[in-house]
Amino acid sequence: MNAEIITIGDEILIGQIVDTNSAWMAQELNRIGVEVFRITSISDSANEIESAINEAFSRVDVVLVTGGLGPTSDDITKPTLARYFNTVLELHEPTLKHVEELFKRRGLPLTESNKAQAFLPASCTVIPNLQGTAPGMMFTKDKKVLVSMPGVPFEMKFIMGSHILPWLTGNGGLTDVILHKTIQTFGLPESFLSDRLAQWEQSLPPFLKLAYLPSPTSIRLRLTARGKSGKLLEAGIKKAALTLLDVIPNEVFGYNDASMADVVGVLLRLTRSSICTAESCTGGTIAQMLTSAPGASNYFMGSVVAYANSVKQDLLGVSITDIETHGAVSSEVVETMAKGALRVLGASYAIATSGIAGPGGGTNEKPVGTVWVAVASSNKVISQKFELGSDREKNIIRSSVSALNMLRLLLFEENPSLRETFFSKMFD
Amino acid sequence: MNAEIITIGDEILIGQIVDTNSAWMAQELNRIGVEVFRITSISDSANEIESAINEAFSRVDVVLVTGGLGPTSDDITKPTLARYFNTVLELHEPTLKHVEELFKRRGLPLTESNKAQAFLPASCTVIPNLQGTAPGMMFTKDKKVLVSMPGVPFEMKFIMGSHILPWLTGNGGLTDVILHKTIQTFGLPESFLSDRLAQWEQSLPPFLKLAYLPSPTSIRLRLTARGKSGKLLEAGIKKAALTLLDVIPNEVFGYNDASMADVVGVLLRLTRSSICTAESCTGGTIAQMLTSAPGASNYFMGSVVAYANSVKQDLLGVSITDIETHGAVSSEVVETMAKGALRVLGASYAIATSGIAGPGGGTNEKPVGTVWVAVASSNKVISQKFELGSDREKNIIRSSVSALNMLRLLLFEENPSLRETFFSKMFD
Repeated sequence: MNAEIITIGDEILIGQIVDTNSAWMAQELNRIGVEVFRITSISDSANEIESAINEAFSRVDVVLVTGGLGPTSDDITKPTLARYFNTVLELHEPTLKHVEELFKRRGLPLTESNKAQAFLPASCTVIPNLQGTAPGMMFTKDKKVLVSMPGVPFEMKFIMGSHILPWLTGNGGLTDVILHKTIQTFGLPESFLSDRLAQWEQSLPPFLKLAYLPSPTSIRLRLTARGKSGKLLEAGIKKAALTLLDVIPNEVFGYNDASMADVVGVLLRLTRSSICTAESCTGGTIAQMLTSAPGASNYFMGSVVAYANSVKQDLLGVSITDIETHGAVSSEVVETMAKGALRVLGASYAIATSGIAGPGGGTNEKPVGTVWVAVASSNKVISQKFELGSDREKNIIRSSVSALNMLRLLLFEENPSLRETFFSKMFD
Repeated sequence: MNAEIITIGDEILIGQIVDTNSAWMAQELNRIGVEVFRITSISDSANEIESAINEAFSRVDVVLVTGGLGPTSDDITKPTLARYFNTVLELHEPTLKHVEELFKRRGLPLTESNKAQAFLPASCTVIPNLQGTAPGMMFTKDKKVLVSMPGVPFEMKFIMGSHILPWLTGNGGLTDVILHKTIQTFGLPESFLSDRLAQWEQSLPPFLKLAYLPSPTSIRLRLTARGKSGKLLEAGIKKAALTLLDVIPNEVFGYNDASMADVVGVLLRLTRSSICTAESCTGGTIAQMLTSAPGASNYFMGSVVAYANSVKQDLLGVSITDIETHGAVSSEVVETMAKGALRVLGASYAIATSGIAGPGGGTNEKPVGTVWVAVASSNKVISQKFELGSDREKNIIRSSVSALNMLRLLLFEENPSLRETFFSKMFD
C-alpha cells in the first residue's frame, strides 16, 4: 500500500520550523509496510490544499494531512476539507464535551473560538485527540482515504498511534509479516560498532535486515524481519539479539524506546536501591532525565546541582584545597561530590559530574569538552574522564548519558545476577 | 518571485533522515524576497524526478533541487536531468581537477566512481562545490531555471551562499521586500490570545500579516511585512510590536528564538542578580533549562532537587509538621522550599516547585496536574497554584516555564526600569 503526506503551514514554507512530523510518520508507516510515495509541504491556502489533495489522490490511496487545524483565522484546513468533500460543518457533541472538560480542568472559560473546534465536517469519522482540542478527521471518497491531523507533533503522534496506524495495519492489505526490534547501544561510535559487528551481521539469516540509527544518546540497531511466518521471524530476531549480547555485552543497554535513564530506573527498582546526583556541568540534566520516567519517586531521592564552587563546598563538603590544587574539574573533586551527595541526600548510589561544557572556560590543559564523572555506592567510588567535543548542548547530554551508563555498569558489577535478569525481563 | 524546492532521496521517504535542508533554504530565500510556494520530497526514481520538475515548472520560475548526486548507483539525479534537458554528460575538466586535488589532499586514490563525478550535463552552468565532489548545476529552459545541488547540508549551503542566493538577488527581478519578526508570548492559550488581540490585529496596516505558532513553551506571533520599502516595513513591524506590548504587557516575554530561560538569564545579567532553584515535581528541569545557555555560571548558583520529602526537610528546612498539615504540594511547603534555597544556595532569587506530575499520585483534592510554584527574593516570597493536564512530560515543562515566568514578572516588579530596558535592548 502507498501513501502520501501533505503538511500544511506557512511556517514550513518560510523555514521557521523544520517539518519533523513527516519523518516520524514516514518511519511509522514503513514499519507497518506502507510505502510513502511523496511528501509535500504547502501553504495555508485553500487552492493549494485542494490541488495538493487532487494530485496526491491521483497517485495513491491514502493521504495523511497535518496542520492548519488551530482555532485562529489563518487555520483553514477544516473548512477547506468540508468543501472539498461536499459536506458541512456541524456540532460534534463528544468533541465539545472533551474541549469543555479540557478547559474546565485548566480553570479557563470556554471562548467562541474554542467552541468552534467542536464543529466538524458532517461526513468525516472523528478521531479523538486526548492531547488537544482539534480531533483527527478521516474522510473517504471513491475508496480513497484522507486523514487530517493537527500539526502539533505530540497530538499528531497520539492520533496516528491510537487510531491511524492500527487502522492501516488492519486494512492495508498487508501480505507479508514485518517485525522490528530495536536494540539500544551506547559507548561505541558508529564506524567502530559496524567493524565490531561485521561478523555477527554476516551470520544473520537472509530475512533479517540491519539498520544503524545514530543519535547523541545512543546508536540504535534496528532489526527488520520480513516473511510469511511471524513465529519464525520472531525466533530469528530473538536469536540475533541474544548472540549480539555476547559480541558487545557492555554496549547493549536496552531494547526499543528505552532511554538510558529508563534502564537505570528499572535496574534500581530490581535491586531495590535508590539514586541521587551531584551535578556541576550537567546542570540538573541527569536529574531531569531520571525524573522524566513515571514513578521515579520510587528510586530517585534528589540532587544537588552545584554550579557555583560555593555550593560544592557548602552542601557537598568539597574542600577549597581540593578545588585550588586540582581544579573543580578533577577526579578528586568529582569523587568528593559523589560521596557528599550519598551522605546528604541519603541514597544507595550517587552520580557526580564536573566539566567544561563550553563554549567558554576551556584551557590548554583542560579544553572545552573535558568532563569528569564519578559514581559511588556504599562500597566504592570510581571516576572517569571523558573528552568530548566543542558543542555545549551535546557535551551536556553525552556526559549525562555517560554518567548513567557508568552507574548501570556498577550496578551489574555489584549485583551478579542482575544482568541476566534485566535482559530477559526487558526483551519482551 | 516564486520558487519551489524538491528534495530527492529514499532516506527522506522512509523517515530515516529529517529534511532540514528545505527549512534552511526557505528561510534564506524568504530573506531575499523569494517566496517558496511548495516543498516536495520524492524518491530516487527517474519518473518521479521528471514529473516533480514538470509540476513545479507549471507553478513557478525557479526550482531548487537537492540530493541524488552521490557517487553510488542509487544516485540518479544527474543522468535524469541530462535527459530531461536534452543534453549529454561530458567531462568537465575543472571539476576533474578539483576532485583529483581533493583526493590527493586526503591521501586517497581516485576511483572510477569518483572520476564519474566530473562528467556533467553539457548544457548546464557548473557551480563549483569547494566542500565536496559533486558540483551544483544550473539549467535554463523557456526562461525557467532549475538548480541541482548535493543533499549534504554544508555542501548545499556552500553552493547556495556562494552562487545561488547572490544570483537570485541580482537576477531575480526582486520587486518586493519581505521582513519577519517573531514575538514570544506565554500565559494565554491560543484562543484567549486571539480574542485579546482581535482589535490590535484589525489595526495592523495591510502590508502586515499575523500568524500564531503554538508550542508547549510559548505561543509565538509571527509578523510578516511585505512591500517596496524596507524602511517603511521595518517601522511598521516595530510600531505593531510596541503597541502589542501595551495590549498584553505580561504575556510578551521576548523576540525571535529567545526561550523563557534565555530571557530570565538576560534579566538576571541586567540586574546583576543570581538565581537558584528548589525543585520537586520539575526534577531539575528548571536548572537544566537555565544552564543550557552559555555563560549561565554568571547568574546560576545551583539547585536542590528535593524529590524525596526527607531532602525537603534535611536540605531546605521544610518542617515535617507543614508536610503533614498541608501536604508536600502546598503553598506553605513550596514557599519554605524557596526561602530554604535562598539561604543554602546563596542566590538573590529562588524558584521552588512542588506538584503532581502524574500519571500516578493524584487525589480528588489534588488531581494530577496540580502544581505549586513559589518565587522568592530577599524582600518577599509569592506562590501560585497551577492546574495543568494529565500528561507528565507536558506538566513538567509547563510548570518549569510558568515558574521562570513568575520570576520574570517579579524581576520587573522589583526593578522599575527593567522592563523598558529589556524590551528595547532585545528588539533589535
